Amino acid sequence: MRTVEEHLESVLAAIEPVAEEVLPLDQVHGLVLTRDVVSDVDLPRFANSAMDGYAVRATEIADITPEHPRSVPVLGDIAAGDGARHTHREGSVWRIMTGAPIPEGADAVVRVEDTDGRPREVLISHAPEAGENVRPAGDDVRAGDVILRRGTRVGATQLAILASAGVAEVAVTGPVRVVVLSTGDELVPLGEPVGPGQIHDSNGPMLVALIRAAGGTVVHTGHLPDDEKVIKKTLDHHLRDADLVITSGGVSKGGSYDAVKAVLTGTGSMEFAEVGMQPGKPQGFGLLGKRRVPLFTLPGNPVSVLVSFEVFVRPALARLAGRRHTPVTVPAVVQQGWSSPEGRQQYHRVRLTRDAAGTYAAAPVGGAGSHLVGGLAMADGLAVVPAEITQVATGAEVPVLPLRPVEEIEADLAASTDRDTTAASSGQPPSVRGSW
Amino acid sequence: MRTVEEHLESVLAAIEPVAEEVLPLDQVHGLVLTRDVVSDVDLPRFANSAMDGYAVRATEIADITPEHPRSVPVLGDIAAGDGARHTHREGSVWRIMTGAPIPEGADAVVRVEDTDGRPREVLISHAPEAGENVRPAGDDVRAGDVILRRGTRVGATQLAILASAGVAEVAVTGPVRVVVLSTGDELVPLGEPVGPGQIHDSNGPMLVALIRAAGGTVVHTGHLPDDEKVIKKTLDHHLRDADLVITSGGVSKGGSYDAVKAVLTGTGSMEFAEVGMQPGKPQGFGLLGKRRVPLFTLPGNPVSVLVSFEVFVRPALARLAGRRHTPVTVPAVVQQGWSSPEGRQQYHRVRLTRDAAGTYAAAPVGGAGSHLVGGLAMADGLAVVPAEITQVATGAEVPVLPLRPVEEIEADLAASTDRDTTAASSGQPPSVRGSW
Repeated sequence: MRTVEEHLESVLAAIEPVAEEVLPLDQVHGLVLTRDVVSDVDLPRFANSAMDGYAVRATEIADITPEHPRSVPVLGDIAAGDGARHTHREGSVWRIMTGAPIPEGADAVVRVEDTDGRPREVLISHAPEAGENVRPAGDDVRAGDVILRRGTRVGATQLAILASAGVAEVAVTGPVRVVVLSTGDELVPLGEPVGPGQIHDSNGPMLVALIRAAGGTVVHTGHLPDDEKVIKKTLDHHLRDADLVITSGGVSKGGSYDAVKAVLTGTGSMEFAEVGMQPGKPQGFGLLGKRRVPLFTLPGNPVSVLVSFEVFVRPALARLAGRRHTPVTVPAVVQQGWSSPEGRQQYHRVRLTRDAAGTYAAAPVGGAGSHLVGGLAMADGLAVVPAEITQVATGAEVPVLPLRPVEEIEADLAASTDRDTTAASSGQPPSVRGSW
Repeated sequence: MRTVEEHLESVLAAIEPVAEEVLPLDQVHGLVLTRDVVSDVDLPRFANSAMDGYAVRATEIADITPEHPRSVPVLGDIAAGDGARHTHREGSVWRIMTGAPIPEGADAVVRVEDTDGRPREVLISHAPEAGENVRPAGDDVRAGDVILRRGTRVGATQLAILASAGVAEVAVTGPVRVVVLSTGDELVPLGEPVGPGQIHDSNGPMLVALIRAAGGTVVHTGHLPDDEKVIKKTLDHHLRDADLVITSGGVSKGGSYDAVKAVLTGTGSMEFAEVGMQPGKPQGFGLLGKRRVPLFTLPGNPVSVLVSFEVFVRPALARLAGRRHTPVTVPAVVQQGWSSPEGRQQYHRVRLTRDAAGTYAAAPVGGAGSHLVGGLAMADGLAVVPAEITQVATGAEVPVLPLRPVEEIEADLAASTDRDTTAASSGQPPSVRGSW
């Protein structure tokens, strides 16, 4: 039996990021740049006004003070977006709006608040320094500057700078196209009636949601019957296009009806391993077909599927996407102890609360069976219990891998302890030092 | 000038969750349930085997021990999904697969590992307790049980239990349909050429990404010229369908060319306020039209837009979606101090690193101007400086609002300090107690 760490290492060692694609900006949110992005232009593109006001030549009105304001003629208005060429004329000013180009020969902007705001002749009561309220061309970025490094994940602010620089498309590690297949003759897709001995497929919808939230693109979700020929044909079909295939079910120990295992054994680099973890012991992984597509065979129980996803599939998805996944846990004090199998790292579903001191407390939920989905939906996270621990003591501290963003857990805790809007409406976000 | 807290309170007090909708499961990921969900069925739906093995009546083989195994006849196979009715016959067993229905009259399953695994006559070497390796019907959920409470946000595990219970559609607070409009004659959409005095719109793409990541549905993104008639017509059009309208630009202090402000002043409950914050001082918010649609007018600078989004729009989006947003900050030590304006709460862009003790260090990035997008894309978070502080000292501790998931920041820190795969491949996720 290999350790979780050994299995994860062998999975990550086998896979590489998917191919580079050049995509328009509206398709790259969440993807990783494969090349440095260089700006072709200065940003700002041209010297422009930081304020609504009057564009002046600073030396010409250096004598002005609040006590000795002076009127000067206004040549006209320059609006943002005005494409005409405007030139400063000695002794006069242009009225100018935020973002509008500074007229040639002017070098400062008097804010409208430091004038009487008139359009033809304006009374100015402040003498600006040269450069005041002017955003020089290239102040932010110079043409030729690298604005984003390869390896950067494109988020909202990265989109802002790319758009500012007029970069309409970028080279990225392509979207990871994932196929999800639930196995077993007992499974019925949601919306269809369930006959005797049958159940609705819950792993498919869960995996689709997990993959999407992790940045993957689900290109197909379907069902594999317990028929080796059909399984083989279906897999061959998907290996032509997919970047990752995930099956659940069909790989239990007995084997007589483990059709997926039967089909895959001996193909590609497929390995079926026992991993020292609970749940999720039977893990299958390999590269299949000409395109060497990574394929995970996950166990069939929903809790095992979830844990296997968090521990192996999520890091693999990140690697396929050209990223690196670093799991981050929060410490919690065990509210009520539980036992853990010797020699297997346990991932125990827990619900988090906060004690008076602000420390998380973890209460086990959902029972021991990995078929129990009722408690799974109550769990905020997975307590990670090392293989050598067989009894988790009440009061012990355990690391908990959150199953949803900590902000969401915090919002629910705030809602349950405090029904007014104080916490939600605080402009000072609560700091969480020492509590998670 | 009102405080950030006052403004946020007035915004949140004005808005309510959008209308309830009944939607199929594949459309509710991330939405909030408006009603308790009750299961119509037991889960498991029927008693089934937890293992591949042989279904027995425990009392009949109680004499078996590893030292005294015994052969019994096998009546046949029961596969998962087998819809036929099977009945136990005294002295014999059924071979049974994981998830298959327990035959009537049997009460335990002997694991295949405790047998010789034969199909016609099987040698059994372990006497199970009654109930061993059997998942009783209703063990997880009973028909009539509330499986999910109203107010629950639907994530992957919630989808799993809904699907298990055969719930094909649920009542949720509907998707929040957001319209994003960038204002100003100087703006050119990405992909079109930029003429003199013009710039590409960067706020639109940034807001779209922020809204989507926050769970909103962007139904339209467009442009408002500095023409009051066109602005009025465009807004009237969107107020018919949208749940939230966000404009950026067109609201600066001067006002002569602030077409958005000119159109909106005096309409609905629209208020233009100065908020004690930097950046983001000029904030407009109100409910407009018959449907009383919330509308934010954000400043035009990208940094102001980002900060306004984090401080006001994100909590408003959560409230429209029936959720509550609780901002969570991480503490960081200031690497190099900066100044902050008196009487305004400052949100300063910082990049995070880790010192040897595992504490975050925050270095300011991107300069003081709120038009500077170059540094914005480098920022990991916003340091929050209270209004009464005018100088942030080197070495001081500040709360930092992350601009991306902490897991991502951690992954980048791990990648930059450690080029091998140790951290990525660790089965024991690093705990972050006391460091964030």
